[in-house]
Amino acid sequence: MKTDVEIAQETKMDNIKNIAAQLDLDEDDLELYGKYKAKISINTWKKIKNKKNGKLILVTAINPTPAGEGKTTTSIGLGDALHSLGKKTAMSLREPSLGPCFGIKGGAAGGGYAQVVPMEDINLHFTGDFHALTSAHNLLAAVLDNHLQQGNALDIDVRTITWRRVVDLNDRALRNIICGLGGKAHGVPRETGFDITVASELMAILCLADDLQDVKKRIGSIVVAYNHAGEPVRADDLKVTGALALLLKDAIKPNLVQSLEKTPAFIHGGPFANIAHGCNSVLATKYALKLADYVVTEAGFGADLGAEKFIDIKCRAAGLKPDAVVIVATVRALKMHGGLPKQELAKPDLKALEAGMENLCKHIENIKMFGLPAVVAINRFPTDTEEEIAFLENSCKKLGAEFSLSTVFTDGSKGAVDLAGKVMRAADRESSLQFPYTVEMSIREKINAVAEKIYGADGVDYTAAADKMIAQMEKLNFAHLPVCMAKTQYSLSDDMTKLGRPKGFRITVREMRLCAGAGFIVALAGNILTMPGLPKKPAAENMDIDSSGKITGLF
Amino acid sequence: MKTDVEIAQETKMDNIKNIAAQLDLDEDDLELYGKYKAKISINTWKKIKNKKNGKLILVTAINPTPAGEGKTTTSIGLGDALHSLGKKTAMSLREPSLGPCFGIKGGAAGGGYAQVVPMEDINLHFTGDFHALTSAHNLLAAVLDNHLQQGNALDIDVRTITWRRVVDLNDRALRNIICGLGGKAHGVPRETGFDITVASELMAILCLADDLQDVKKRIGSIVVAYNHAGEPVRADDLKVTGALALLLKDAIKPNLVQSLEKTPAFIHGGPFANIAHGCNSVLATKYALKLADYVVTEAGFGADLGAEKFIDIKCRAAGLKPDAVVIVATVRALKMHGGLPKQELAKPDLKALEAGMENLCKHIENIKMFGLPAVVAINRFPTDTEEEIAFLENSCKKLGAEFSLSTVFTDGSKGAVDLAGKVMRAADRESSLQFPYTVEMSIREKINAVAEKIYGADGVDYTAAADKMIAQMEKLNFAHLPVCMAKTQYSLSDDMTKLGRPKGFRITVREMRLCAGAGFIVALAGNILTMPGLPKKPAAENMDIDSSGKITGLF
Repeated sequence: MKTDVEIAQETKMDNIKNIAAQLDLDEDDLELYGKYKAKISINTWKKIKNKKNGKLILVTAINPTPAGEGKTTTSIGLGDALHSLGKKTAMSLREPSLGPCFGIKGGAAGGGYAQVVPMEDINLHFTGDFHALTSAHNLLAAVLDNHLQQGNALDIDVRTITWRRVVDLNDRALRNIICGLGGKAHGVPRETGFDITVASELMAILCLADDLQDVKKRIGSIVVAYNHAGEPVRADDLKVTGALALLLKDAIKPNLVQSLEKTPAFIHGGPFANIAHGCNSVLATKYALKLADYVVTEAGFGADLGAEKFIDIKCRAAGLKPDAVVIVATVRALKMHGGLPKQELAKPDLKALEAGMENLCKHIENIKMFGLPAVVAINRFPTDTEEEIAFLENSCKKLGAEFSLSTVFTDGSKGAVDLAGKVMRAADRESSLQFPYTVEMSIREKINAVAEKIYGADGVDYTAAADKMIAQMEKLNFAHLPVCMAKTQYSLSDDMTKLGRPKGFRITVREMRLCAGAGFIVALAGNILTMPGLPKKPAAENMDIDSSGKITGLF
Repeated sequence: MKTDVEIAQETKMDNIKNIAAQLDLDEDDLELYGKYKAKISINTWKKIKNKKNGKLILVTAINPTPAGEGKTTTSIGLGDALHSLGKKTAMSLREPSLGPCFGIKGGAAGGGYAQVVPMEDINLHFTGDFHALTSAHNLLAAVLDNHLQQGNALDIDVRTITWRRVVDLNDRALRNIICGLGGKAHGVPRETGFDITVASELMAILCLADDLQDVKKRIGSIVVAYNHAGEPVRADDLKVTGALALLLKDAIKPNLVQSLEKTPAFIHGGPFANIAHGCNSVLATKYALKLADYVVTEAGFGADLGAEKFIDIKCRAAGLKPDAVVIVATVRALKMHGGLPKQELAKPDLKALEAGMENLCKHIENIKMFGLPAVVAINRFPTDTEEEIAFLENSCKKLGAEFSLSTVFTDGSKGAVDLAGKVMRAADRESSLQFPYTVEMSIREKINAVAEKIYGADGVDYTAAADKMIAQMEKLNFAHLPVCMAKTQYSLSDDMTKLGRPKGFRITVREMRLCAGAGFIVALAGNILTMPGLPKKPAAENMDIDSSGKITGLF
């Protein structure tokens, strides 16, 4: 089979004006970035805001494994299938980050015959949103360090500074640095570090805000440090809320591209799925819902992290409600959850599959707990046996979930026609969203609710450090915020080695972080790296472009 | 008078397609970035490369003072004046950096009624070129640190690493850092730091390269460190030349915008004018010359640094030759050069002007030494007296330079009609470019030639460190490269307090840097900061954007 970039570069794309026209958008609604990318004008909202919303389809997954599940690929294929059935469809997906692209992944715009294009642009600088976020984030850091240098009128306690810097790359050597060295003219020495841009609170803000005014309000509320009296120092105190908003004026506009099958795709925002909520922007989703009858969107990692936060953070903040939830799984990955090692996954093994099915089972139960209809999509591999498939189908039926096989990687929309039918049927059912917790509950009650209801934990333990931070947040009146759980994506528990459906475990919350601008509190269960490293042989080594513009090494 | 951003936002811009049509470019030649910005397709070159070149007008200046000279503003006004006279005109200017924009300047797209627009985009992210350079630069740094972490197969001596990181902001706290802290999993600890993006060697490469293949060749040749045997380690050795070129695939395409008077303006690249050559890209200048009859371009700082490097580095590398050179000065700045303090510049003072005129005089002599016709443009202020102007006019005539008054800041093109006439006349004269040195000369001979001929120094002294580095460069066969002088822009000497036309001084070269990819050797005469700091009250504090999109605080 051809490589992703070969398939993408061979595709004759439609002018983005024609793609927009499918959604009844005309040239005035667009800010063109070349012939195949556009941003949607902020003024368009006034025109469409009173339209009826389409159906919102959330695509999530089992706990990811190194075997790969293909959530984005399935989302795109499902969108294409709905589109091929004559439905007015839009996708609403996350923007990929340069870091993983040059690290291991080599790209993140779907795969095979279910891709969004121009994939090389989407995977590289796209319309500059991440660069704008990086600049804004680092301007705030530079102004903060300049404030220290110029006399520290706000009496900032340098030991309490929480605002680090960001770069949209995997660069482990920047995780922990000392800056301000070299003497009096060169800043105040202090410990700090860099995170990857997707971990920036500004990214979460961009993805949760309603409009530019909301962005400004949220930026102004960011707590960057504390003064010696223990009071929060905010971005507003540093007087750069306006400058940061100015840097983000275009980044907040949703981006429109197309899939290989010319389905309109909004690709906008991409916050981390552990220390942030992991879904594309509220603005893109809202635009898509006004413009299409079916909107396919995705959440990060597995349903325990991604779908939970989609509901508890994004839906709660934006007043959204999914009409159906697709859970992506593969036979291979479920066998891994059942204890089979990676190198044996091609072997038929019903026993391992049966054990691993428990992971999928818990996610189906969780979706039902949210009050939403669940459709299981098995991303089919050639090594899957009929027996294995039959077992899965049977198990899903018993749990009351729809079941469908997907082959979109090799077949494009044709590979998800059955899935699309089942999704439409599920979305037509009456459903009523149930939140796992209410924001009025205490911080601990909220964390416990997620751990017990969603993860299946017996309870939550807090380190002394976490206790202290919770007390501080309560004192500073931040207890009303929803909680963003940061834990390993590989397990329902906080131990990445516990696959399948672990039981009899407790979660340990080790640290709390305040994102007062984004509007949530992060509870870290485990050591979450916010700056990835590069592997021994980075994907960047395979990349090239020749004088004719032919690109190699992107996937 | 209105602010720059008010004037800019009130202007009804023309669609960029119409601007491009003035240069006989059609839609196929353009990659649109909204309605008012475009990149020119790389394929367009094939179509135009056999056309006759237009006339190239270089705008330079006296040594800058805090009084301000208005070189970019004059360049734009001159372009507008040529355009208003019915000449097929294009400007070819530098892209501004975000750092100074948020620091002191608040913008750099001309001023008053001589601006390029959309100024808010040009001053902020524009078409993302600087962000692409930042990403590419930092990817190389990340890969280098990852190489150390993964076993250092190239045997890099960490103490010799010359490749730092960059950020397009003024952030003094990043000048000197220690990275790689936190233990074995988090990199190899070492001293390093950040420069501003315009100081990146990649910026110089982008601005000197002929095409993408040339970019790749130059990237591959960058020396990032030395191994323990003292041999250079190049970007090619780290296997990321292709990935870096891929990141720059769009950045190398010239950007087209317009002036307030709808003159086409190429704005592309902006390397530092001290440790790099300080002019816009060769590609933009070459495109402009094929497409217009008159091309107005500018060089950084005063003529001693900017024009010299324009000629010795850019023209030499690209086979260009200016047809006329405009030297911008103001009565106020010349009085400062004559010893008058800043707060007294509004006072008529013929004696100070006479003394300060010596600075202008030396620059006129230098332009004549290059074999080129010189036109002095006095950017007129209301406080300038008739007597002062008459003195300057007389002095210029005696030196064989044309003389003109410019009022483009308040009057737009009307303020430079006389200047345009004199420039056209000068450009019609036969001239033959004389380089101050040939590349075959030794490194010391080249440095001495610039110092003695251009600065008027009695000679050059070298520190022991510089001696050692020159010996190393000679040994490694880099002696054939042209020299890029880095010294204070405020004086013809290397002492920023020596205004006017200093005499009886020597230059001290303290350090040498190799830019094997860009293709020059930097000789540092003085302590050149490659990362600016923010002032006590950064310009960012005044910036804002309201919900209607109205922007304040950009100049």
